Amino acid sequence: MNVRTPDPNPGWLSEEDLYEARRRLPMVYVEAIPVRLDSLGYVTDVGLLLQASEEGQMVRSFVSGRVMYRETIRAALIRHLEKDLGPLAFPQLPASPIPFTVAEYFPSPSETGLTDDRQHCVALAYLIPVTGECDPRQDALELTWMSPEDALSPEVQSEFTGGRGNLLRQALAHAGWCR
Amino acid sequence: MNVRTPDPNPGWLSEEDLYEARRRLPMVYVEAIPVRLDSLGYVTDVGLLLQASEEGQMVRSFVSGRVMYRETIRAALIRHLEKDLGPLAFPQLPASPIPFTVAEYFPSPSETGLTDDRQHCVALAYLIPVTGECDPRQDALELTWMSPEDALSPEVQSEFTGGRGNLLRQALAHAGWCR
Amino acid sequence: MNVRTPDPNPGWLSEEDLYEARRRLPMVYVEAIPVRLDSLGYVTDVGLLLQASEEGQMVRSFVSGRVMYRETIRAALIRHLEKDLGPLAFPQLPASPIPFTVAEYFPSPSETGLTDDRQHCVALAYLIPVTGECDPRQDALELTWMSPEDALSPEVQSEFTGGRGNLLRQALAHAGWCR
Amino acid sequence: MNVRTPDPNPGWLSEEDLYEARRRLPMVYVEAIPVRLDSLGYVTDVGLLLQASEEGQMVRSFVSGRVMYRETIRAALIRHLEKDLGPLAFPQLPASPIPFTVAEYFPSPSETGLTDDRQHCVALAYLIPVTGECDPRQDALELTWMSPEDALSPEVQSEFTGGRGNLLRQALAHAGWCR
Repeated sequence: MNVRTPDPNPGWLSEEDLYEARRRLPMVYVEAIPVRLDSLGYVTDVGLLLQASEEGQMVRSFVSGRVMYRETIRAALIRHLEKDLGPLAFPQLPASPIPFTVAEYFPSPSETGLTDDRQHCVALAYLIPVTGECDPRQDALELTWMSPEDALSPEVQSEFTGGRGNLLRQALAHAGWCR
Repeated sequence: MNVRTPDPNPGWLSEEDLYEARRRLPMVYVEAIPVRLDSLGYVTDVGLLLQASEEGQMVRSFVSGRVMYRETIRAALIRHLEKDLGPLAFPQLPASPIPFTVAEYFPSPSETGLTDDRQHCVALAYLIPVTGECDPRQDALELTWMSPEDALSPEVQSEFTGGRGNLLRQALAHAGWCR
Repeated sequence: MNVRTPDPNPGWLSEEDLYEARRRLPMVYVEAIPVRLDSLGYVTDVGLLLQASEEGQMVRSFVSGRVMYRETIRAALIRHLEKDLGPLAFPQLPASPIPFTVAEYFPSPSETGLTDDRQHCVALAYLIPVTGECDPRQDALELTWMSPEDALSPEVQSEFTGGRGNLLRQALAHAGWCR
Repeated sequence: MNVRTPDPNPGWLSEEDLYEARRRLPMVYVEAIPVRLDSLGYVTDVGLLLQASEEGQMVRSFVSGRVMYRETIRAALIRHLEKDLGPLAFPQLPASPIPFTVAEYFPSPSETGLTDDRQHCVALAYLIPVTGECDPRQDALELTWMSPEDALSPEVQSEFTGGRGNLLRQALAHAGWCR
């Protein structure tokens, strides 16, 4: 961000500048929890990504990523869903832009209970039905579909980091999951 | 409801009893506004039914109907969507049971602004994306797809009765429609 | 409902007729979970009623009751809050009529996980901040304020019946409670 | 953001760096529409700020501002409400962090219909009941309380810029305002 001469890519941030920005400004994120629905709309399966953390630990996560400059929330959602689930997942974006919750991750513990070492990020979180075939790309090793019961089991919950297990709980509560 | 001997259809109400019940108890309804969404989830079209009212006037309405005894909200939604849009509409019920609003219709004017001559009804209102072909049955003469702009035009608004035009406004506001 | 002559109280149902109606029609209910909020809106305490069930067991419950004929949701909420918490509770009704969930209770087990022996009821459920003094009346023995952690503890959860413990979970999830 | 030596105020951005950041990253904002509610929760009055724009035009606006690094949404809301309405407004923050909509402002026209010359900003928008006395400070000339009808009149709508008039429409629709 030290370039003051006309800039051919005004919305572009170098890795270095992005690193700095993450220590000065809250980042806007979208977070999507892929689900399979039956014909009545009940959640039958939750899709969880399995990834290696920087420390080499296997952790569960959701589809997640930054909203770019001049990008709409919806465009960011589609971009990250396609990146993490492949081009044939056919995610169904909701008619309403209202998230099921706003997840606030901080670099140190706070009242929100959500942490992210790298940054303060404000994530708009959505439940996204997907109807197609998922083929995780990039750094995700695997996408696992499991029942809501299994996703909330202590074993799977222990594989989440940064408080994301509770986010899943909130998502299923929003879906009226009640057992 | 004057039958006290064992009743083979305990959830069944005669026309006469239903007529009476409508004058004594609020009825539970579901109301669905069918929409077409683009790949980003923006509403491109709203589906409005055109029906003849009891007075022979042509009026606009939504998919709407009673929740039966022992029927879930979701089952009632699917039943009324299929009845009003035909079996090939492929409505996508949402993961969450939370309606975009609760519409309270009263037999006489009230603070809600919504009226229904026949009854006091509490309608859970949903925006429902449909992806298939709609073929209105029963007493609906026609399903018209139109843009949100056209649906909110004074001309179309004048074809709604009982305050339903405002319900459409609320639905589109919920979808973030903003122009 | 067997009166066909002009009726001086058309919205009134005899105990007998109400008993019958409960076996033929879904009843409209409101359900309110009283909470104390701190100045930032975080839930600090949840108010749970302690009542004797018909079998003489002590059970936890929420403020809850029927919406009468020609009564608005908001009027029913205020009426039941005042009845269960006393006239000095000062409940703050929300600007929006959208419930945090729609709770469907059935007289026998169903996919909703919520049961009510007496009836099929569709309850619009709200979190209601109260700022005043609560003085439970009627058949409630006690109103207990407790932290969200305590309210979700296995011990307290075991005091709920009909699946209401999960409703509390959904309420706190809606409030972003995340620990 | 050109400081790479240890920084005593790591969350602090110089005016210059903030100017640059606004051209490279979406900013996180909160937006609050102050309302007066009656005892049933119906909106009786909407509070609109009257401010001079940079071009000296009088424009209507809401309470609005940036979320700082390491600041929660709730803390940002309280800070901006206090800044714009004074210390005696007694705003009541909601139990739920879910906004009534997510308003996306872009520096040039887009599908959201919302614009902000200075930046791309993602604003979480809330309806906030206030019960105390408001005494606008800073650069706001005046806070005007008006009925929902008046706030939606063509005259007042013409005093909004950047599409904010539609945001007010969405807020009132969320509150079930229906006339």
